[in-house]
Amino acid sequence: MTSSPFDHPLLSGLLGDEEIAPFFSASAELAEMVRFEAALAEGEAAEGLIPTEIARHVVAALKHVQFDLKAIRAATARDGTIGVEFVRQLRAALDPKLREYVHLGATSQDMVDTALVLRLRPVLAIFRGRLETLRGQILDLDRKFGSQKLMAGTRMQDAIPVSVADRLSAWLEPLDRHDERLDQLMPRLFRLQFGGAAGTLDKLGSKGPAVAGRIALALGLEAPPRSWHAQRDAIGELAGWLSLVTGALGKIGIDVVLMAQNRIGAVKLADGGGSSAMPHKQNPVKAEVLVALARYNATLVGGVHQALVHDQERSGAAWTLEWLVLPQMVMTTATSLRTAMTLLASIVHIGEG
Amino acid sequence: MTSSPFDHPLLSGLLGDEEIAPFFSASAELAEMVRFEAALAEGEAAEGLIPTEIARHVVAALKHVQFDLKAIRAATARDGTIGVEFVRQLRAALDPKLREYVHLGATSQDMVDTALVLRLRPVLAIFRGRLETLRGQILDLDRKFGSQKLMAGTRMQDAIPVSVADRLSAWLEPLDRHDERLDQLMPRLFRLQFGGAAGTLDKLGSKGPAVAGRIALALGLEAPPRSWHAQRDAIGELAGWLSLVTGALGKIGIDVVLMAQNRIGAVKLADGGGSSAMPHKQNPVKAEVLVALARYNATLVGGVHQALVHDQERSGAAWTLEWLVLPQMVMTTATSLRTAMTLLASIVHIGEG
Amino acid sequence: MTSSPFDHPLLSGLLGDEEIAPFFSASAELAEMVRFEAALAEGEAAEGLIPTEIARHVVAALKHVQFDLKAIRAATARDGTIGVEFVRQLRAALDPKLREYVHLGATSQDMVDTALVLRLRPVLAIFRGRLETLRGQILDLDRKFGSQKLMAGTRMQDAIPVSVADRLSAWLEPLDRHDERLDQLMPRLFRLQFGGAAGTLDKLGSKGPAVAGRIALALGLEAPPRSWHAQRDAIGELAGWLSLVTGALGKIGIDVVLMAQNRIGAVKLADGGGSSAMPHKQNPVKAEVLVALARYNATLVGGVHQALVHDQERSGAAWTLEWLVLPQMVMTTATSLRTAMTLLASIVHIGEG
Amino acid sequence: MTSSPFDHPLLSGLLGDEEIAPFFSASAELAEMVRFEAALAEGEAAEGLIPTEIARHVVAALKHVQFDLKAIRAATARDGTIGVEFVRQLRAALDPKLREYVHLGATSQDMVDTALVLRLRPVLAIFRGRLETLRGQILDLDRKFGSQKLMAGTRMQDAIPVSVADRLSAWLEPLDRHDERLDQLMPRLFRLQFGGAAGTLDKLGSKGPAVAGRIALALGLEAPPRSWHAQRDAIGELAGWLSLVTGALGKIGIDVVLMAQNRIGAVKLADGGGSSAMPHKQNPVKAEVLVALARYNATLVGGVHQALVHDQERSGAAWTLEWLVLPQMVMTTATSLRTAMTLLASIVHIGEG
Repeated sequence: MTSSPFDHPLLSGLLGDEEIAPFFSASAELAEMVRFEAALAEGEAAEGLIPTEIARHVVAALKHVQFDLKAIRAATARDGTIGVEFVRQLRAALDPKLREYVHLGATSQDMVDTALVLRLRPVLAIFRGRLETLRGQILDLDRKFGSQKLMAGTRMQDAIPVSVADRLSAWLEPLDRHDERLDQLMPRLFRLQFGGAAGTLDKLGSKGPAVAGRIALALGLEAPPRSWHAQRDAIGELAGWLSLVTGALGKIGIDVVLMAQNRIGAVKLADGGGSSAMPHKQNPVKAEVLVALARYNATLVGGVHQALVHDQERSGAAWTLEWLVLPQMVMTTATSLRTAMTLLASIVHIGEG
Repeated sequence: MTSSPFDHPLLSGLLGDEEIAPFFSASAELAEMVRFEAALAEGEAAEGLIPTEIARHVVAALKHVQFDLKAIRAATARDGTIGVEFVRQLRAALDPKLREYVHLGATSQDMVDTALVLRLRPVLAIFRGRLETLRGQILDLDRKFGSQKLMAGTRMQDAIPVSVADRLSAWLEPLDRHDERLDQLMPRLFRLQFGGAAGTLDKLGSKGPAVAGRIALALGLEAPPRSWHAQRDAIGELAGWLSLVTGALGKIGIDVVLMAQNRIGAVKLADGGGSSAMPHKQNPVKAEVLVALARYNATLVGGVHQALVHDQERSGAAWTLEWLVLPQMVMTTATSLRTAMTLLASIVHIGEG
Repeated sequence: MTSSPFDHPLLSGLLGDEEIAPFFSASAELAEMVRFEAALAEGEAAEGLIPTEIARHVVAALKHVQFDLKAIRAATARDGTIGVEFVRQLRAALDPKLREYVHLGATSQDMVDTALVLRLRPVLAIFRGRLETLRGQILDLDRKFGSQKLMAGTRMQDAIPVSVADRLSAWLEPLDRHDERLDQLMPRLFRLQFGGAAGTLDKLGSKGPAVAGRIALALGLEAPPRSWHAQRDAIGELAGWLSLVTGALGKIGIDVVLMAQNRIGAVKLADGGGSSAMPHKQNPVKAEVLVALARYNATLVGGVHQALVHDQERSGAAWTLEWLVLPQMVMTTATSLRTAMTLLASIVHIGEG
Repeated sequence: MTSSPFDHPLLSGLLGDEEIAPFFSASAELAEMVRFEAALAEGEAAEGLIPTEIARHVVAALKHVQFDLKAIRAATARDGTIGVEFVRQLRAALDPKLREYVHLGATSQDMVDTALVLRLRPVLAIFRGRLETLRGQILDLDRKFGSQKLMAGTRMQDAIPVSVADRLSAWLEPLDRHDERLDQLMPRLFRLQFGGAAGTLDKLGSKGPAVAGRIALALGLEAPPRSWHAQRDAIGELAGWLSLVTGALGKIGIDVVLMAQNRIGAVKLADGGGSSAMPHKQNPVKAEVLVALARYNATLVGGVHQALVHDQERSGAAWTLEWLVLPQMVMTTATSLRTAMTLLASIVHIGEG
């Protein structure tokens, strides 16, 4: 019962990614939010804001909280964020004496944004691994077929003969740079979100930065000088990177589609998709999907950039827009990377030799 | 386990729509595809292309086919469409003598596009009803508060006093026109898709148009002069209409957000969203959501329009892009309409009287 | 000195349109604004709001006003609209006794939006004529080559042989519907904008609607029940229509590009573009341009839809966004239509016979 | 006679930028193309591909070539690029003996892309200077008003009091990161384009890389391992950066707009825009423009990313799409930076003290 191809019971075979999808499950998100709350209690204890003994009890208790998802869902309809009811359930599950020490000085956005970043970290590590795999696959194709002839195409006309190696280098080099870009953007993205009600950690007095430093350390994140509730540039940058990646794979896709035309025959794929009307056909389905995913991400990237116009200390409208767009972009990129690996693995020949 | 807020176990409380979501379930889609196949067999029988008796058996048997969703999902990864395996399972479920008479002369896209249109029809009927409800709600607010004073805002500055009725008319009038536009676009959208392998009904000889007419009649659709496999203007037009609707509701949203500011206080809502850090707050969550959904649809509409560049007789890349975007746009509009109704119902006062 | 290809001294040969560009000149816009002011004075005189004699003098004087464009440009930087300084210059050019009778009860947006609509009317008439021409050209190609064979392409693979007529029908039919859509949207678009400071014609007392009716009649526009300052759905609908048109022509473009591939040779063009490196090449430049323009409009349409979230009685931000996007979309469509006519006229053969 | 507000005789006062616009003039572009050709001849001479004496004559002669812009414009309509006629005119202007030594081994895209990069370099240096200015302005505001009180706004509701310094930090910090991002992307962007007909420098034999190295050195660009005709990731990354910058300034804009509301009064601007209907008003025009420009760039960025799907060795459609979008994005960013500087300079007070 889903409008999203990434999760669709039928279409997700084509358009989903089983390795990445779990990072967007409710349980994955709640687990990271709990981790944030535990690190918060420990950090506040270390800075003397709450008793160490209490913090230990809180952390221990957090491990066993069972959430009522339906109640969170219902409350989210009212609150506009999953955080309010999450905290309420967390507190209700604890000994009454502990309750006031949970979520002390934090706000919903602190948990939700930090939980996002904590899940993006392994996701991007997987993406990096897939980029590495793809680069290896292209180099392998180059070893096998690099010296084959290929008719270069400029403006969709035959230009002059080049080698398959020439074409492959245009597939490979952007991936190298995407890796470099990822290195550069990660320190800006993997940052703790922690600001409290209005981003100023007003309830922690002079201990705010020290507590933030401790939480960040515990979670393995950067500790920014202050919260980034309304500074969404790292999210916008990530969206751009995701779309650059799918764009590069879309270029591979369109090239394969064109090479696979019957009267060109410059690539041979091990398995193409079938047709219900023409059983003889071998469709370059994976390559087409890469084109579709590139155009989808190129469509979505503007949505995240619209959300950069984030008013005052927190904009419900802009933040909600991110939720609508960013996870789709991550899934689009996941599926594109996975599909590209399958496509390249299915190439049994390139070249017109 | 979903990246889509529309189906998310937590966020769908805020961003989902339980009435519309089922139209995008696998079972709803498969049911309409079966209906297409039944109408096809009957139409072909009526035109003498298959024996009447056979058609009757096929139609009877179709009612009882149980699909193996996992197998369809797996095959879709290869074929790029759910149709190939769907037909295979359909045939496998029938008496061998009947099999050749199923899907005769049709192609995957015929079933899938027709099944889309058949589900859009009730969805748009529901949307029309919601627009009607919204118009009633606005008229009701007008009756109650229309004569109240309101400070007009131009370029975000106080202009001159107007009445609440003036503001409400700017909410109402676009909805009237959206209703009119829907009337006009429906005949272009609710059309049978039926073209066979390359859109020409090549396997039906001279009987193609007659069969198409019969299927269309059976399904209550228009029978276009020929298939629209590569003519996607009606889909693009629908996408535009959906985004016009959410844009109009986004305008209501931003107006409510601005009126609800504490130091303006020109609207009072029965229930606002809470905050995990500031329990005193009453956030205009529904109004913010309307803005976010308007911006999301405005982002997505371009994706469907990119898919208008639909090459040759069928483009896998362009068609797949539609699947990624259009259902999201329908859900965005559903949620926006539903949210607007809730928001308007929650207004206990408008005006600065 | 321009960043816009439509007006660029070199690129406009490829991407501009000399027939449509003048409608976006300063002089064309100012002329329509003057026409609005004249109709306003006459309408107000007819309703007894200003002396008939005065109105006659105002109308006569308006014909001879010379505008100081640099001063308007400078003032626009401050005011955010060309209207304030326009009215100041208009008044300064008149006899002091007449001045108070100019622009009485109107606001900048009344002039600017009405002047837009008045220019869109002839532009869309030209577009309609071009659509008609294109349809004639396609029918002519059909007469000449319709019975030729063509290998149908589905998912970029050879499907089955069809006729050129089959392919041409997929080019033609959307254009018929675009014509129908234009008929339907025009009454919603060609409407007088007249609302005064906050859209309520507050300065005209009970005479507002009557004056509006007279101005609309004089200008040949519809008189809506009230001003549409913050109701931008007709602008959004137009943007959608423009992108539907360029999308349909982009489909023709991609088909020609694919047919023109050297090893396909299913279309022969009289003149292709040259290359500085490969003089032998004949590039299908016009067809490529159609694809680029379709993707550009599909990109831009979302910008106009973002502007539907138009706050309160007038949003400077949303209105300015329209100015940035809509004229580009009109020019994109103009160039696309013109380019499609040139492309179709250059086809000397289609088919694989 | 222009549809582009950046060049419009009236609107460019509000939306243009006189410092950046000249970089998009025909003369600026042609000058850089000539520079490329001169460096090419010198590099080829240094590598022994053409006689040194000849190269010297070519370089000397290039300085005096007068171009016939109308002829280039006309030829561009046919060729789809300005390069073919440019080279023809260049050769025609030279002594017949020199002609064959001009543009040897290069293609149009080499000149056009390199000329783009050569103009983007000073443009981005200016942008960097403006970012620096803006950061200085924000720090200055912080010194003057940082300790003032401000009511924090979350979800458009009053949250808790913070200081003006808190708000200003959210304006400042993204700009620091944009500076860092620019540092990182520049080496990927400022690269020579030089590949010849199909990107392989086929006419230069083994001397290709050496010649490329010399040209790059002469022009102060990076020499990439090979041409990037079909690798457009640096262009896509730049587009993303431009939109991140305008997004950050749009956030400043929306904050100022909200603070400037009459009943909030948290910011006082030296000069607001006037109204033709309400002379008393002081509209926050510059702040609104920042919002509009942010949304425009967020709309456009997807267009450049669509162009990443760049087929084979050179795609006319994808390249043309870049020409339609990228210069607009640069101008949008220029105007946004300029407008932000003017806006910040006009702030005479922030805070609710």
